[in-house]
Amino acid sequence: MGEYNVAILGATGAVGTRLIQQLEQSTIPVKSIKFLASARSAGKQLKFRDAPVVVEEAKPESFEGVDLVLASAGGDVSKRLLPEAVKRGAVCVDNTSAFRMDPAVPLVVPEVNAEALNRHHGIIANPNCSTIQMVVALEPIRKAFGLKQVIVSTYQAASGAGQQAWNEMNTQAQEHLDGKEMQSTIFPVKGGAKHYPLAFNLLPQIDVFEDDGYTHEEWKMIHETKKIMLDDMDAPDIKVTATCVRVPVGIGHGETVYFEVADPKQASREKIQEALAKAPGVVLQDDPDQQLYPQPINAEGKRETFVGRVRGDQENPGSYHMWVVSDNLLKGAAWNTVQIAEKLVEKKLVRIK
Amino acid sequence: MGEYNVAILGATGAVGTRLIQQLEQSTIPVKSIKFLASARSAGKQLKFRDAPVVVEEAKPESFEGVDLVLASAGGDVSKRLLPEAVKRGAVCVDNTSAFRMDPAVPLVVPEVNAEALNRHHGIIANPNCSTIQMVVALEPIRKAFGLKQVIVSTYQAASGAGQQAWNEMNTQAQEHLDGKEMQSTIFPVKGGAKHYPLAFNLLPQIDVFEDDGYTHEEWKMIHETKKIMLDDMDAPDIKVTATCVRVPVGIGHGETVYFEVADPKQASREKIQEALAKAPGVVLQDDPDQQLYPQPINAEGKRETFVGRVRGDQENPGSYHMWVVSDNLLKGAAWNTVQIAEKLVEKKLVRIK
Repeated sequence: MGEYNVAILGATGAVGTRLIQQLEQSTIPVKSIKFLASARSAGKQLKFRDAPVVVEEAKPESFEGVDLVLASAGGDVSKRLLPEAVKRGAVCVDNTSAFRMDPAVPLVVPEVNAEALNRHHGIIANPNCSTIQMVVALEPIRKAFGLKQVIVSTYQAASGAGQQAWNEMNTQAQEHLDGKEMQSTIFPVKGGAKHYPLAFNLLPQIDVFEDDGYTHEEWKMIHETKKIMLDDMDAPDIKVTATCVRVPVGIGHGETVYFEVADPKQASREKIQEALAKAPGVVLQDDPDQQLYPQPINAEGKRETFVGRVRGDQENPGSYHMWVVSDNLLKGAAWNTVQIAEKLVEKKLVRIK
Repeated sequence: MGEYNVAILGATGAVGTRLIQQLEQSTIPVKSIKFLASARSAGKQLKFRDAPVVVEEAKPESFEGVDLVLASAGGDVSKRLLPEAVKRGAVCVDNTSAFRMDPAVPLVVPEVNAEALNRHHGIIANPNCSTIQMVVALEPIRKAFGLKQVIVSTYQAASGAGQQAWNEMNTQAQEHLDGKEMQSTIFPVKGGAKHYPLAFNLLPQIDVFEDDGYTHEEWKMIHETKKIMLDDMDAPDIKVTATCVRVPVGIGHGETVYFEVADPKQASREKIQEALAKAPGVVLQDDPDQQLYPQPINAEGKRETFVGRVRGDQENPGSYHMWVVSDNLLKGAAWNTVQIAEKLVEKKLVRIK
């Protein structure tokens, strides 16, 4: 006995298929479902809770009668179509970067700033994958001890660049194992001027470069983290800086997060571990004696963010390290999007037609 | 017309074969060569400058008449045999961790502290691979602007754990691509209680854990960096902290190095790039417009340390990021060892028998 008419925009990609799966497993009472995609994918038959659903071409009129849109079809598509959906009374959760830094659009990680949903005007943005898992791990620390600064290095999986890119890395790996030259047409940036192999290699470029030498991905982590964690306007500023590196992993981003707490006297390795252990969405995997620490292969398919290797900087009291891993396609994308939608439904922030 | 009787201890491993190759290409005038290894490898025939050399079992008497020993056969072997070689008048350059932190043993990266060789007592230690490439990149910055602190995250290649481990990662990659379960018997630590796959995964453990939650590899980076860079006793202390992660790459360690200079007014992104461009052993690869930055696949087989992605932390004047890559088997091991030997010969610090 569903209540909501839901549309998934971009239903066929690596994130899209997981949006369907996460929605199937969600608490949202779905009355009807529409799968929308480009003209190229229209006509394809997919399933929702075992019932066949034919993919339709996404057009402004597609959103007539739709209450809730989950979008992951690229920034340009979101920019063009989500305002059309809002015009027709739908609430949209957008997994692209199109509206993330728009001051009128809440940028939400439910474990951190679910209350920002109350201020929505029809569109809610899902943050970048590498940002989400970091703020899930940082928020319990900020709450308990305050946060002065964060220095993060990422180890980002191939699937974050999309299904095609992920396939390319696997093909390259096979070429390399066969002693052949690796062919590159996508990494580091689809449509970019130069392409390099990712298999058995490291690419310190995700997204395009800005004039100051940072990549756009690095600036996303900096700006999005501040927007999410400082949503409460009275919160003191947190300094954030980042280096983003693509690594030859299929699913699961890793991050070394170095942070300085505001109240060093209250914090300790054990107290930080305690705060993480009881934090929502976090699984503490931190037992060096048992060689227990987060690994991408163990995070794959899970909704949680895994944290381990917590330890103090012995020469800087109040500064600590941690290692954070999560499934970039789930908490980093599809699950956080559906989780936002669950919260919207829970808070009755989606109007039913 | 060679002058030196040279022995290579541990001639058959991933580093050993490269020690032979680097010695072949070196400026050291070699009169005779001995390849020493365990009883298991004795009898194997290898080559030195096209001449066949039969591997002999390493015993104390093997070092009779030897002037110069290059050792990479494991810490226990070095501890047992190098004092025997010294007793017989040889000078030893040791690529194991056996003597690195011994105050009487110089720990040398020729670009940084070649003068420490003058104080040797028969054994000179080669630092850990991840330390070497970092200090090569940091030294020109320290010289120009001073250094207050360093926070490093490593992306370390499989070959750093030895030939067998490297083979295991390749086998795992093929298993994964074939849809089979990956088998693990070596990573993260040979002989450890638990083993995990490295292919398409990330392992935030290199070497064993200490009580404070750091791995031994992380402490090596901290202590060795200080020993090498503060060799001049008047040098002000540098704070160093590290997280070491093993990544599914064959050859070439990557490092995100975040550092704070002592003199922020003198430093700038451009001036740091200039200092790096003219530093010995460094190749600056830093042109975002051309998507030029260091990558392991380009560093493989090269002696230099490659540095790119130099840029300031916009919220912490005086703090900067850089990305450092080098061939962990060459500058990280075999080449630095042979380079130390070249310096010893140049400085006439090896007595010829």
